[in-house]
Amino acid sequence: MSYTTLIINAPPPYLSLSQQERLPVVMTVAGSDSSGGAGIEADVKAITAHKCYAMTCASALTIQTPVSVYGIHLIPKNVITQILDVNLRDMECDVIKTGMLTVDAIEALSDKLNQLGPENRPKLVIDPVLVATSGSPLAGEELVSVIKEKLSPLADILTPNIPECFKLIGEEREINHLEDILQLAKDVQASCKSANVLVKGGHIPWKKTGDRYITDVLLLGKEKKFIVFKGNYTETTHTHGTGCTLASSIASNLARGYSLAQSVYGGIEYVQNAVAIGCDVTKPSVKENGPINHVYAINIPLERMIGDECFGGKEITPQTSEINLNELSISKDLPIIRKDFVQYLHNHPKVKPHWESYINHEFVKKIADGSLEHYKFRFFVEQDYAYLVDYGRVHCIAASKAPTIEDMEKELSIVGNLKEEMENHKERLIKHFGVKDESYFERITRGQALKNYSRYFKSIAERGGNWAELSTSLCPCLMGYGEALNQVKSTITTTDPIYQHWLGVYSSEWYHKEMDEGRIMMNEIAATYPPEHLETLITIYAQVCELETKFWDAALNYEEQ
Amino acid sequence: MSYTTLIINAPPPYLSLSQQERLPVVMTVAGSDSSGGAGIEADVKAITAHKCYAMTCASALTIQTPVSVYGIHLIPKNVITQILDVNLRDMECDVIKTGMLTVDAIEALSDKLNQLGPENRPKLVIDPVLVATSGSPLAGEELVSVIKEKLSPLADILTPNIPECFKLIGEEREINHLEDILQLAKDVQASCKSANVLVKGGHIPWKKTGDRYITDVLLLGKEKKFIVFKGNYTETTHTHGTGCTLASSIASNLARGYSLAQSVYGGIEYVQNAVAIGCDVTKPSVKENGPINHVYAINIPLERMIGDECFGGKEITPQTSEINLNELSISKDLPIIRKDFVQYLHNHPKVKPHWESYINHEFVKKIADGSLEHYKFRFFVEQDYAYLVDYGRVHCIAASKAPTIEDMEKELSIVGNLKEEMENHKERLIKHFGVKDESYFERITRGQALKNYSRYFKSIAERGGNWAELSTSLCPCLMGYGEALNQVKSTITTTDPIYQHWLGVYSSEWYHKEMDEGRIMMNEIAATYPPEHLETLITIYAQVCELETKFWDAALNYEEQ
Repeated sequence: MSYTTLIINAPPPYLSLSQQERLPVVMTVAGSDSSGGAGIEADVKAITAHKCYAMTCASALTIQTPVSVYGIHLIPKNVITQILDVNLRDMECDVIKTGMLTVDAIEALSDKLNQLGPENRPKLVIDPVLVATSGSPLAGEELVSVIKEKLSPLADILTPNIPECFKLIGEEREINHLEDILQLAKDVQASCKSANVLVKGGHIPWKKTGDRYITDVLLLGKEKKFIVFKGNYTETTHTHGTGCTLASSIASNLARGYSLAQSVYGGIEYVQNAVAIGCDVTKPSVKENGPINHVYAINIPLERMIGDECFGGKEITPQTSEINLNELSISKDLPIIRKDFVQYLHNHPKVKPHWESYINHEFVKKIADGSLEHYKFRFFVEQDYAYLVDYGRVHCIAASKAPTIEDMEKELSIVGNLKEEMENHKERLIKHFGVKDESYFERITRGQALKNYSRYFKSIAERGGNWAELSTSLCPCLMGYGEALNQVKSTITTTDPIYQHWLGVYSSEWYHKEMDEGRIMMNEIAATYPPEHLETLITIYAQVCELETKFWDAALNYEEQ
Repeated sequence: MSYTTLIINAPPPYLSLSQQERLPVVMTVAGSDSSGGAGIEADVKAITAHKCYAMTCASALTIQTPVSVYGIHLIPKNVITQILDVNLRDMECDVIKTGMLTVDAIEALSDKLNQLGPENRPKLVIDPVLVATSGSPLAGEELVSVIKEKLSPLADILTPNIPECFKLIGEEREINHLEDILQLAKDVQASCKSANVLVKGGHIPWKKTGDRYITDVLLLGKEKKFIVFKGNYTETTHTHGTGCTLASSIASNLARGYSLAQSVYGGIEYVQNAVAIGCDVTKPSVKENGPINHVYAINIPLERMIGDECFGGKEITPQTSEINLNELSISKDLPIIRKDFVQYLHNHPKVKPHWESYINHEFVKKIADGSLEHYKFRFFVEQDYAYLVDYGRVHCIAASKAPTIEDMEKELSIVGNLKEEMENHKERLIKHFGVKDESYFERITRGQALKNYSRYFKSIAERGGNWAELSTSLCPCLMGYGEALNQVKSTITTTDPIYQHWLGVYSSEWYHKEMDEGRIMMNEIAATYPPEHLETLITIYAQVCELETKFWDAALNYEEQ
């Protein structure tokens, strides 16, 4: 028999910068959900995704899937007690998080915490699981009084949802206003004697249609203060395990040393993202709530290992020969893509509506006929100045990933050109808008549209976006300004020198030459990009056209404070 | 009571590019280790860290920590059967991974797999847990025959360590040579009838001292082929849970569609990294094997959220005012750091030995006296040409993170200068070494020293290295070439024009001006960098000096093939 030797790569160099780190430790005391979406499994996933170390203490094994709870196997009290004993004796533990508990588990845990005393016990996050997301009650009424008597007075934070609040205070109420939730939080705190309470409002979106949002209310007991977290409501069926995950995320953030308010913020955002992306892991026949996606922000280790400069297993990867254009398996409609990719994009149904809103924007029309108020233009110039800095940074990242030295130089020459556009903006602000102080330009307040746009760039770069993705995200800015000017060129009536100058730049011969070079580059990308990934480039182009439109919307709708 | 409203940020834009993804699903059938280092807990952590979806089926709860196994609670067969039933009916499942099993669990699982039939059952990875890392036998002898009879014939891969191999074949053997392991793998496969076998050699490093390494041997049954994975042996006590983690990682990679050889490669490298970084989560009194670090490559979610352009919770983060140099709490020895940070670095005990090996390198001395063989210089020039491309890319990344536009421009002007150094190299290769084809420069074979150096750069950039870290990693190249030339300047005797020209570049006035600018930049960094993080910069500087030394070592020791 033959044999091949493969060298396993040495650990990545950055590991030497953080060796033997003290990982924050979180122990979950809860029921196991063997289907992985909720309970201990969701806790371990969330704690791991927060770069913390998870320990467990099972109160019960449930036999369940998102479809139903089919059965339950209770863990005897002496096992629970023993696990708590050895975990807290041999291991570090920063925070304990509880989920579904039995009376046995509550007694074992409160005994242990009382034995350790207030100085030595870990922080305690209690998710009082009394009603599961699916609506089926997981725990009987008798539990409520034991939790309130033995456990909640020890809690740093209690995280009930609204139905659980009702059980904890012993009455149902109408919730019609934010004030109703604030009152509920106060009453839960009084009734449960927990230091702090987070009332989760995820079950009740505040509006029936449109931008629906949800509110979670944190009552900080000591500070006598409310913090209201306003989040996006996602229309989805992937909500199995949200409660467990939120409490574990809060516990992980606390274990890492963040404040309670920060920890709750981070937990809510993590859960919201995990719900919004979702994951598809149930059989097609299952119509019930699917689980959330705990791993949305994680990179795939083997993908990185194979991409590593020093990867030592070339023999086990498929040989990718150099790209040969003639050999590319190109689908039938690709010739048109390769001939003029930018035009193809502008006509693509996913892009077209956004592209057209962008290049036919009222903002440009009002500059062309001179009817735009100066203060709105000033706002635009300031935002665009700050934008160009970010735009330049992304070009630098693109340069770092360019396939050839020539492409790298092209990217850098664009950064050089930006400098000129920025000087134009500076001159406008100094000459026409009375700015005197040079440091003014570093202190520009960044508006929401600018922030969203910059965040998009960073997001593409951070997800490891390749040169083609980055170049595609940079393209709509170049193309759209030129094309928007083409649309109004014949109807320019403004006599305002500020507006005339601005209009002149983007209809100049120089600018059109830049656009031509951009087109050539995009054609080169389309010619060699794997056809099955072109969809991603199309989506990016469409999304950036939308961001450009909103950037002009923001200027058009700007009002002085 | 007062209240504050915080807006939870919308999900990061990149999520929209991969919504509702089908996560690969792995189910672990194993014992729970409530202290989190091994068993089901290690499996869920490893599967999560591989961006897969974990399901569980517990065969038993063990009461254990790295210190000892204190007790065990067996799960009744009907519970195991029910869990397998509902998990495999309602959920997708790509791979099943087994760990510590009971006879009940083996029977329940093999019944279920036989019921599904070869077409419909998930892949099966069996880690035959018969001897735990700590040496205590977790399972009795009677299990061996049940595993061999009912389970291993169904396995896609069986992953025993060497003591487990002995139990599976029913005899102990001397292992003195690689051939002994190959034979062992064959015998295990014949005895267990598994399609493929991975014999883990982690318990036996091959050399007593020096570069100790370990080998894992994969026997591909169908191909009748061995793959030997040669890994680094890490002297550590953090090995609790390595077996579970390796099998889960292999299962996760298989679930994602990688080949068996790739999956094993990825699993071994992941475990090796997790062992090498380790983590500190046991009480100081515990001297036994600590757990490995499953989360070494994970980013901290809240850190990224707070750093997000659109972070909506400014009120809950400590206000960081603009850095005021006069207000900086600077420790006593900082004035000297601020005055000449580069000199401080060169005298730092962590840096000094590496810096001195670097600038007093034999390679440069042999250029100065003309005794270096031309083929070695040619190798150096080629490697350095390829290096400069990477060096330029890192400067682009640094530019993208530069604090001011001016710093950004400085970075980019350096990239411009590199072009000149590259042209020098091209000329050398064309004029003196007969290179004719321009495409030659893109086809240079990258040597190991170059690969390691480039990998280091990428590693700094990928771990989210800030501008200061990147600039520090780029600095030794600039400083060392100039300083190495200073060392030999007075003793140059070579009359070789190639060598004279090379020596001339790095002792030129222009080069020394570049060095001076580098020093100014490093002083600016030291003046504003948080003193508590200076240690990281020092480590980076030291590590890069070492990489530079090895780069010249490689040229000095180069021999034509």
